Amino acid sequence: MRMVDIIIKKKENKELTREEISFFVKGFTNGSIPDYQASALAMAICFNGMNKKEIGILTDEMLHSGDTIDLSSIEGKKVDKHSTGGVGDKTSLVLGPLVASCGVKLAKMSGRGLGHTGGTLDKLESIPGVTIDIEKDRFFKQVNDIGIAIVGQTGSLVPCDKKLYALRDVTGTVNSIPLIASSIMSKKLASGSDTILLDVKFGSGAFMKDLDSARELARTMVDIGDELNRDTRAILTDMNQPLGLAIGNSLEVIEAINTLNGHGPSDLVELCVSAGAIMLVQAGRVKTIEEGKELLEENINNKSALNKLCEMVEAQGGDASYIKDPSKFEKAKYIIDVKSNKDGYIKEINALEIGEAAMKLGAGRATKEDIIDFATGIVLEKKVGSKVNKGDTLCKVYSNKEHVESILLEVVESFKITNEELKTLPIIYEIVE
Amino acid sequence: MRMVDIIIKKKENKELTREEISFFVKGFTNGSIPDYQASALAMAICFNGMNKKEIGILTDEMLHSGDTIDLSSIEGKKVDKHSTGGVGDKTSLVLGPLVASCGVKLAKMSGRGLGHTGGTLDKLESIPGVTIDIEKDRFFKQVNDIGIAIVGQTGSLVPCDKKLYALRDVTGTVNSIPLIASSIMSKKLASGSDTILLDVKFGSGAFMKDLDSARELARTMVDIGDELNRDTRAILTDMNQPLGLAIGNSLEVIEAINTLNGHGPSDLVELCVSAGAIMLVQAGRVKTIEEGKELLEENINNKSALNKLCEMVEAQGGDASYIKDPSKFEKAKYIIDVKSNKDGYIKEINALEIGEAAMKLGAGRATKEDIIDFATGIVLEKKVGSKVNKGDTLCKVYSNKEHVESILLEVVESFKITNEELKTLPIIYEIVE
Repeated sequence: MRMVDIIIKKKENKELTREEISFFVKGFTNGSIPDYQASALAMAICFNGMNKKEIGILTDEMLHSGDTIDLSSIEGKKVDKHSTGGVGDKTSLVLGPLVASCGVKLAKMSGRGLGHTGGTLDKLESIPGVTIDIEKDRFFKQVNDIGIAIVGQTGSLVPCDKKLYALRDVTGTVNSIPLIASSIMSKKLASGSDTILLDVKFGSGAFMKDLDSARELARTMVDIGDELNRDTRAILTDMNQPLGLAIGNSLEVIEAINTLNGHGPSDLVELCVSAGAIMLVQAGRVKTIEEGKELLEENINNKSALNKLCEMVEAQGGDASYIKDPSKFEKAKYIIDVKSNKDGYIKEINALEIGEAAMKLGAGRATKEDIIDFATGIVLEKKVGSKVNKGDTLCKVYSNKEHVESILLEVVESFKITNEELKTLPIIYEIVE
Repeated sequence: MRMVDIIIKKKENKELTREEISFFVKGFTNGSIPDYQASALAMAICFNGMNKKEIGILTDEMLHSGDTIDLSSIEGKKVDKHSTGGVGDKTSLVLGPLVASCGVKLAKMSGRGLGHTGGTLDKLESIPGVTIDIEKDRFFKQVNDIGIAIVGQTGSLVPCDKKLYALRDVTGTVNSIPLIASSIMSKKLASGSDTILLDVKFGSGAFMKDLDSARELARTMVDIGDELNRDTRAILTDMNQPLGLAIGNSLEVIEAINTLNGHGPSDLVELCVSAGAIMLVQAGRVKTIEEGKELLEENINNKSALNKLCEMVEAQGGDASYIKDPSKFEKAKYIIDVKSNKDGYIKEINALEIGEAAMKLGAGRATKEDIIDFATGIVLEKKVGSKVNKGDTLCKVYSNKEHVESILLEVVESFKITNEELKTLPIIYEIVE
């Protein structure tokens, strides 16, 4: 078998066999197939796509290109969720404790962020003392004991994806649903949970720009899950503005705590309760989504979800007094009101633009080596649909640098204001299962 | 400027600017742009193509990626021809002396062959003593003195193409008209002749499988010539069977000599006379193609073209007595008749298949390191359209190995025989100018 023939076959829009896909994944992972052939194949896939069968095989082969996590030593149903990424997305910090407080297990391996704001791991580390670097046995024990752990990746999961993603990033081949779907799903499947809930975001701040392409990606990933016998469902959610109000690491942790205290912004609350209810159904913990929502709302009201977050923070070496009293989090030196320069209604808060501004304040990394300044970021005071008058505060900027005039300008420009009255945006558009 | 943005632009089917194409050609040539980005761009070009303007710029930038030959020290009009390659193609050995005998100059740099049979240089070297390794000043002097030289490449012409072609070969990106056209034309333009005649072959034994794609490739290359002010014309010729009768290095030289003696196979004679007449028109030597053909036929009849070949062979250190008496060429040890196993009419002599068989006999190289056995090959006795009876000789196989049964089987299978009566195939289908 020759790699060039596999490339030509895909270029000619023919279906690749398991043997061919396996030859590519194994060869690329072990280095016998060079990058220049992998990038040519990736580009051919961008143009000709892959059918359901090919995508299933590609995912399965990638999944087995390295270690897989065996969670069988953890009792009960293990659920997992994945977000395709957005600005202000602190969902895992709310949703994790919420579902764990209902008795299902969340053994979550999460990532760090590049661009915008930090990832879930960075946000967790903004709580003094928390470590995400936990070896496997202690990770399993923590999930068995308290029902939840959120840690960094252990072992070498899906090395093929790691290599391929880095290559796609520099060869213009990121934007391909078969490649995105197999990349996400191979990692989720390798992580070993019984069920997967995917939060596929769309809009100006998301990778998928519109509902149709988000639906196609979601459908493709759910189909992969079906093909490989893992209960997989997806929700399509809005990213035409940041999620919730806070953007920035400790600012988002504080918002997550507020949400578990019953004072969350409505979009974040709705997303976490709805997504959590689906996860409880997937785990067999409840029969219906309605029943799940009731249970989750109860666990917000009775603070059991908040207590679960405290338990997790303590188990991972953190100081839970910060969860009980979020005013203890260190504040940024400068808190600056950003005001509207016109009257009207907010049509969009461009999440990419405001995320980029937050990154420049120190809330995210431009390169892997950058160090995050946890206290910096932005907290919105208005959301899409809000009426604003000239001079109203749109948001507050949290900065440790005094002179951030150009960043403030970018922040104000990320708010798109129109004369037409607008409705607020729904957060969840569809469920794909 | 970032290469990844150039790739994405082409992937999105947008026109690349001169700056972008130049950035790619320079960066790829000097190694600052890695192979994996070049192959991704090549694949995107395979799918989205390039417009006339982009192809002109790409050719121009490639042409200037290395040395160019300045032929101005050679007096008179310098003509050049290029064939896209086929089996049994000894045209240059006939056409070169023919046009030179009419007083136009041919300063030709040619190539070696990989697969099938050797290239023009290998064929020339089958004449004892001939060298193709001639340094520039002597090359120019020879063309000034006798009007013709056929030598190996001098200097580093179009290094970008050399790298890109090798990469395309292993990444499934050979088959793209913009890439093929810019590759051929950049090398021809760098070689410095005043006029270029392209012999674009199509059919089972050619790179272009049908007349339409051959026409598109020819049109694209002629347009590049126009764009870059070089008189470029093309002929579209048949390669649904080998050209002439002989396949194999000294066998083809002997056929070329026979042709210059007035005893050539009709397709080869027609091709050389027609192509030569166009070259004479391009050089301004004659006004019309008809006039050109008459002059060329005269120079076959009066042996002045044959004498020109003798002069060239002598000037390049060869023994011209072989040209005067081709029976001096060493013969293969075994000459085996290949007979038809059925009655009918020959529909096709698959040039790829019979070329492959000739290579296995020793007439071509499977890898760069292989040494060619000049005397081996195949000489056809029947061509497409011929009636054959079971037991008739289809061709003779020239071998220095005794046991070549499996090769003989391949040879006989390359003849496709049908019951329907068929016409002989024309050799030239169209002229593109």
